[in-house]
Amino acid sequence: MLLFEEVRPVFSMLRSFSARARSIRHGTSGRLRVMSTPPLGNTVAPVALARFLKDRPDVSVAYDVRRLEHVIEAVQSGAADVGLAIALERHPSVNVEILSRTHMVALVPKDHPVSGRQEVTVSDLFEHGFIGLEAESRMGQMLRDAFDREGIDYEPRVEVRYCATAAVLAGAGVGAAVVDPYSAAHQSLQGLVQLPFQPPREVAAVLITRKGIPRSRLLHGFIAELKRAAGDVF
Amino acid sequence: MLLFEEVRPVFSMLRSFSARARSIRHGTSGRLRVMSTPPLGNTVAPVALARFLKDRPDVSVAYDVRRLEHVIEAVQSGAADVGLAIALERHPSVNVEILSRTHMVALVPKDHPVSGRQEVTVSDLFEHGFIGLEAESRMGQMLRDAFDREGIDYEPRVEVRYCATAAVLAGAGVGAAVVDPYSAAHQSLQGLVQLPFQPPREVAAVLITRKGIPRSRLLHGFIAELKRAAGDVF
Repeated sequence: MLLFEEVRPVFSMLRSFSARARSIRHGTSGRLRVMSTPPLGNTVAPVALARFLKDRPDVSVAYDVRRLEHVIEAVQSGAADVGLAIALERHPSVNVEILSRTHMVALVPKDHPVSGRQEVTVSDLFEHGFIGLEAESRMGQMLRDAFDREGIDYEPRVEVRYCATAAVLAGAGVGAAVVDPYSAAHQSLQGLVQLPFQPPREVAAVLITRKGIPRSRLLHGFIAELKRAAGDVF
Repeated sequence: MLLFEEVRPVFSMLRSFSARARSIRHGTSGRLRVMSTPPLGNTVAPVALARFLKDRPDVSVAYDVRRLEHVIEAVQSGAADVGLAIALERHPSVNVEILSRTHMVALVPKDHPVSGRQEVTVSDLFEHGFIGLEAESRMGQMLRDAFDREGIDYEPRVEVRYCATAAVLAGAGVGAAVVDPYSAAHQSLQGLVQLPFQPPREVAAVLITRKGIPRSRLLHGFIAELKRAAGDVF
């Protein structure tokens, strides 16, 4: 009897251990590590995360918004379970899966000369000044290509590294910017008009996972919410 | 006469050159390179930049939002004319000047149990779950210190690297977050309540300049707008 009293806590520990193992198997417990570049990290992924966590009180999450090279490296090394990025169609060392396809957009301050147009062209930007994107980024290259295609000089008044920054500056009234539509969606449109940009520049939103690693139920659950949220943001 | 015709363009070039030299001296022409961490780079600095560029059509700007170590390094090496950051009171290799002092705040989803309070405490956060900040950051340390001081375990449900990310996740309904007030100001308050955080954690907004380098008129003009904007944001 005395012996049983001493052993009793072990039964309770075993019960709690097997309950925890079951909840991990069912994807309702555990830890998920998500890494995203800013466009999706500020829009689609937070919406997905809020829904994902709602019914999973025993799940904890590490959530990091970083530059593309960090995201790829973290997924490749296993430091992150899933990565999110835009304008990356394939990569030799990770799985890349397209969530949705869309186009770059122009963000124009309401009092700007072209804010009443149906669309914004590179010659509108050239004429009235604009916020450019650094050449090293994929978006910066896409914007330069658009100018080259029309034979118009690329001469931004202000140049930034990220679409997020360009969107913020447009919102503060610095001038027109051309950004991916996720960065545009994150920016408050108070004082701004969002217009189609001509020529069209396609942007894909992608999911990045590790090669050769089966997905956990937890990860499956989060990816399902990402796919749902990717459709909801626009 | 023929000779004069050939020389004439040189006079015009000289005139345009001296006009340009004059406008550089007066701070109405030239290039300014600004680098900021996200809290001020998304709030105070864009407002200052918009006002600064308004009356200076011949000024172009490189504007970059980066991590603190990049900002300090760029100012120190001369790659940036001015840096902006928060929670950095002094540094051995650059000049640090305080723009304004304020406190960390709590961002709480409107339907959250503590959204009706006068203030948010660490025990409120512990009880209802919260979004934490990574230990490596100054803000992350300040938040941990607040828990330590009250003798309460620091156990965030979701952990992020930047205040900006914590603010976005709070906005998406993931949970309560404690962030610097600039990151809070950048986040749309739709669906969120901003409350004082107890115990108070002071945050300074600072200007970073290169040691031993006199400021150009262009830089003086931008700094004047920064000081004005720092007062306007709250």
